[in-house]
Amino acid sequence: MKDSYEEYFLPLKDRKSQEQIFQKLMDICFDFYSGKSRDNKILIHKSPDELKAEIQEEIPSRGMGYDEIIDVLNNKVGKYSIAQFDKKNFSFPDSGNAVPAIMADIYSKFINQNMIAVSRSAPIGTFIEIQLIEWLRELIGYESKPLAQIGSLSEVSGMITSGGHMSNHIAIMSALNSTYPNIKNRGISSLDVQPAIILAGDISHYSFSSAMHHLGIGQDALLSAKINSDYTTDIKSVEELINNPPEGKKPFMVVCVAGNSRTTGIDNISELSKLCKKYGLWLHTDACHGGSLLFSSKYRKKFLTDIEQSDSVSLDPHKGLFSPYPCSFVMFKKRDTLAMFTRYEKEVRDGSAWDLGYITPFYGSRGFESLKLWLTIKAIGLDKLERIVNDRQDLARKISRLIDNSGYFTLFNEMDFYRMVFVYYPSDIRKKVSSLKLASSQKEKIKYWIDHYTHLINNQLYESGDLCLDEFKLIDEGNFTGLNIRDRYVVMSVTNGNPKQTFSNVEKNMQLLFDTCNYFKPEFMDKIEDILDNNGSNQKPSNQKTYGPAGW
Amino acid sequence: MKDSYEEYFLPLKDRKSQEQIFQKLMDICFDFYSGKSRDNKILIHKSPDELKAEIQEEIPSRGMGYDEIIDVLNNKVGKYSIAQFDKKNFSFPDSGNAVPAIMADIYSKFINQNMIAVSRSAPIGTFIEIQLIEWLRELIGYESKPLAQIGSLSEVSGMITSGGHMSNHIAIMSALNSTYPNIKNRGISSLDVQPAIILAGDISHYSFSSAMHHLGIGQDALLSAKINSDYTTDIKSVEELINNPPEGKKPFMVVCVAGNSRTTGIDNISELSKLCKKYGLWLHTDACHGGSLLFSSKYRKKFLTDIEQSDSVSLDPHKGLFSPYPCSFVMFKKRDTLAMFTRYEKEVRDGSAWDLGYITPFYGSRGFESLKLWLTIKAIGLDKLERIVNDRQDLARKISRLIDNSGYFTLFNEMDFYRMVFVYYPSDIRKKVSSLKLASSQKEKIKYWIDHYTHLINNQLYESGDLCLDEFKLIDEGNFTGLNIRDRYVVMSVTNGNPKQTFSNVEKNMQLLFDTCNYFKPEFMDKIEDILDNNGSNQKPSNQKTYGPAGW
Repeated sequence: MKDSYEEYFLPLKDRKSQEQIFQKLMDICFDFYSGKSRDNKILIHKSPDELKAEIQEEIPSRGMGYDEIIDVLNNKVGKYSIAQFDKKNFSFPDSGNAVPAIMADIYSKFINQNMIAVSRSAPIGTFIEIQLIEWLRELIGYESKPLAQIGSLSEVSGMITSGGHMSNHIAIMSALNSTYPNIKNRGISSLDVQPAIILAGDISHYSFSSAMHHLGIGQDALLSAKINSDYTTDIKSVEELINNPPEGKKPFMVVCVAGNSRTTGIDNISELSKLCKKYGLWLHTDACHGGSLLFSSKYRKKFLTDIEQSDSVSLDPHKGLFSPYPCSFVMFKKRDTLAMFTRYEKEVRDGSAWDLGYITPFYGSRGFESLKLWLTIKAIGLDKLERIVNDRQDLARKISRLIDNSGYFTLFNEMDFYRMVFVYYPSDIRKKVSSLKLASSQKEKIKYWIDHYTHLINNQLYESGDLCLDEFKLIDEGNFTGLNIRDRYVVMSVTNGNPKQTFSNVEKNMQLLFDTCNYFKPEFMDKIEDILDNNGSNQKPSNQKTYGPAGW
Repeated sequence: MKDSYEEYFLPLKDRKSQEQIFQKLMDICFDFYSGKSRDNKILIHKSPDELKAEIQEEIPSRGMGYDEIIDVLNNKVGKYSIAQFDKKNFSFPDSGNAVPAIMADIYSKFINQNMIAVSRSAPIGTFIEIQLIEWLRELIGYESKPLAQIGSLSEVSGMITSGGHMSNHIAIMSALNSTYPNIKNRGISSLDVQPAIILAGDISHYSFSSAMHHLGIGQDALLSAKINSDYTTDIKSVEELINNPPEGKKPFMVVCVAGNSRTTGIDNISELSKLCKKYGLWLHTDACHGGSLLFSSKYRKKFLTDIEQSDSVSLDPHKGLFSPYPCSFVMFKKRDTLAMFTRYEKEVRDGSAWDLGYITPFYGSRGFESLKLWLTIKAIGLDKLERIVNDRQDLARKISRLIDNSGYFTLFNEMDFYRMVFVYYPSDIRKKVSSLKLASSQKEKIKYWIDHYTHLINNQLYESGDLCLDEFKLIDEGNFTGLNIRDRYVVMSVTNGNPKQTFSNVEKNMQLLFDTCNYFKPEFMDKIEDILDNNGSNQKPSNQKTYGPAGW
């Protein structure tokens, strides 16, 4: 028996031992949640070299028993993983802690349906996914109908993807192919112009520039519009680019950002959709962050009016809808958009084929990732989902006031959605500096120390594992610092994504941030005074590099 | 409390009830495995309309309690799902039943790391994935080294993807950008030729033609080589296309198929790599099926010699390596291939950044899907993995003989890897027909009935839920039927992917196939006799459409 490998494959002969193995697994899953696996820290911080040393290993010849497997998961993997759902973690909204979503993901691993096809692959899964897509159409405000009336695959006009990155790729590709259908056979090399898209480069997600490369369009053809001081797209600037594109470039698409990944500022969708109608361009709304607001009639009205006028919309339930990765969608207003990408147009249109693989570009064999959102919506229901979104907005405003009232920070945005950005620049110091006439070299030096202490404070907290805020760089578009520097600042950022977060808990945890800020204030003031009085010393540009995903 | 939503998010207040919920979930997961959820059938078969009716529902306003959630998973989802791991299911190798892989997937849903970045996202996960990629490099035979010596992201030369479809896309994109680096900025529209790839269209995976469309190259530039009678690429035909491409098309890549998805025939990698070296073309080996043979020194030598000469290789552990979806990889010989796709070339090359998102085109925020293969290799170990692959090959040969010896079928291929294809055309009838001089209209009519009964028998078994073989269409390249018809036949196909499969079990299950074949034999003989004696009656072309994923 020592050479047997039977024990590694389900079903095990003995259901009792099978139950015990998974019982132990659930225990360490819960221990990660409770904090036990990670010494009650958000993260036990280690450097890249230390992490490499933890796991470096030749390919093992001999295997392990189940106790050892559990130990590896708990004491190697879990121990040095970060808990995004932890209530002391404010770096990103991706809480991923909805029980129905996790249950669905677990179940889907056991049933392991292949969503490429119906027959022999995913009989009920196919139709659950189509039902979900129809629900999402209804939530966006696209034309929708009962599942039984979906007569063919060509009517399925939306798809699940592995992430917003990919959803945005597929939106661009759809807009491009709608505009230039000959690309399918003849390729982009047959065009005598370079097709172009217009977006506000300073706030748009990097997936768009990546997609321009990957899809063969070329990054030169990403035309960047200006932004407003609230980190939304400057619509006049978009219209100027439409009217005066660089020579050889021809716009086919405009990107509307409904919740940028840095400040979650939301563009005016109505105005952008009117503009796109006027010029016959495809409007894509990147609602990877903002999409969760579709579940609240109040905030939908406030932030997402006319989203249903977009030709395509991307949504990321693994961000603002507490779903584990991967869970993203790209949705299309026009019913038969995805039929452009099929090999079997007849079968896709006549209703004789229901194999989703025929209309899911980039995806063939794939798992049943859509089950989790279908089950989350069914299990929690629209009423409670609306309350969750509304409560989150209420909490966001309270957090915003708490941070602002502390006096330690200069805010770059109001937290009117779920994310806010600020630098360590106490209001009393800012007021004093603003009242003085300073040379630009002095302002640059002040900025240096703002960057320095913003990072120092934030990074110290991050590495302690006791409080986690995001960190990245952002232009001070509204001149919030008063320093009039159009360079990127190192900023901290707070997000609330976990529906279990409470204000009293936020207050308690933010006290650690405030205490740390207070501790460094005398040092920081000395540096600023030195600049004001003696022009300070010259500093090399800071080179810190610890950005979370939003810095992307 | 009736409006609370706390109970839907982890961690629950009461760990005991949390444990009970997941205990009940595990019970229904195991019940799906044991067959209890699905009346001990591979599948409780329903039509598309019936499946739609099962789940059609307006977006629910009210949610559900946990007992109801469990009931939905068990009695809606599981009940009408197909069990790919079931030992009576021979349709596809995707058994997905490796316990360590399932454990890793479950654990990864709880820890929910975001593999886009190290900081605040996936600290240890990042390096586990890099370690795994290095192991895969070593298994392929690419240059490899210890993890600690990987000095920068630019050395990470391979990536996980959502499926072979995507892996093949990224391989083409890499080859294209290596050949035409200006595409990054200027796009394919700046080229004065249409870049082309060469592959054997009759056996290559459809992902390549899809990718030609999606990546803006154009499907016209997919140049199709001939195939040999063993369903491998005809290398002379490839060389002819290299030397005489259609006007305006310029080849940059050749695809080698290491296990096509229909017969798992494996191309001669050595010869194709020599050819590509001679002409300076990129060789991509699609080893989505064949890749599992890397774990066996015996079969690696027999089938995959010189695979390390390929510029890129795609691997699909969710096919031949019992891993749940999604789990696929694309690997590159040249270390810094993925650096072509980064926005931060300096950081990616100087070792200051370890954020995988910088070098994973198409993927930003994403889950820790690589954990499952890393843990599977660690848990089972190379020694046992080799035995599993070797045992599978032994079993494949035995199954092949069993099917052949039954006398009911005409085989289209030897099952020298893990998949075989055949039609219902009993050998005694075939011999009789072959001895006669027939008109081509008679041969066409015989083919009609071969198609008809192949489908009838296979579909009856499939819908019964008692035995599942694959079904698709395939050209009789070797004239195995003796009918000399270069049209596509409806074929059945048997695969063994489940490491727990045994020959005695196969014998028992195949008896049902043989019994069904025997039942229909008199009918079938009547049809054939009628054609031989009276030229039969005219039949409309059959129009059945129930193909599994391999038909793709």
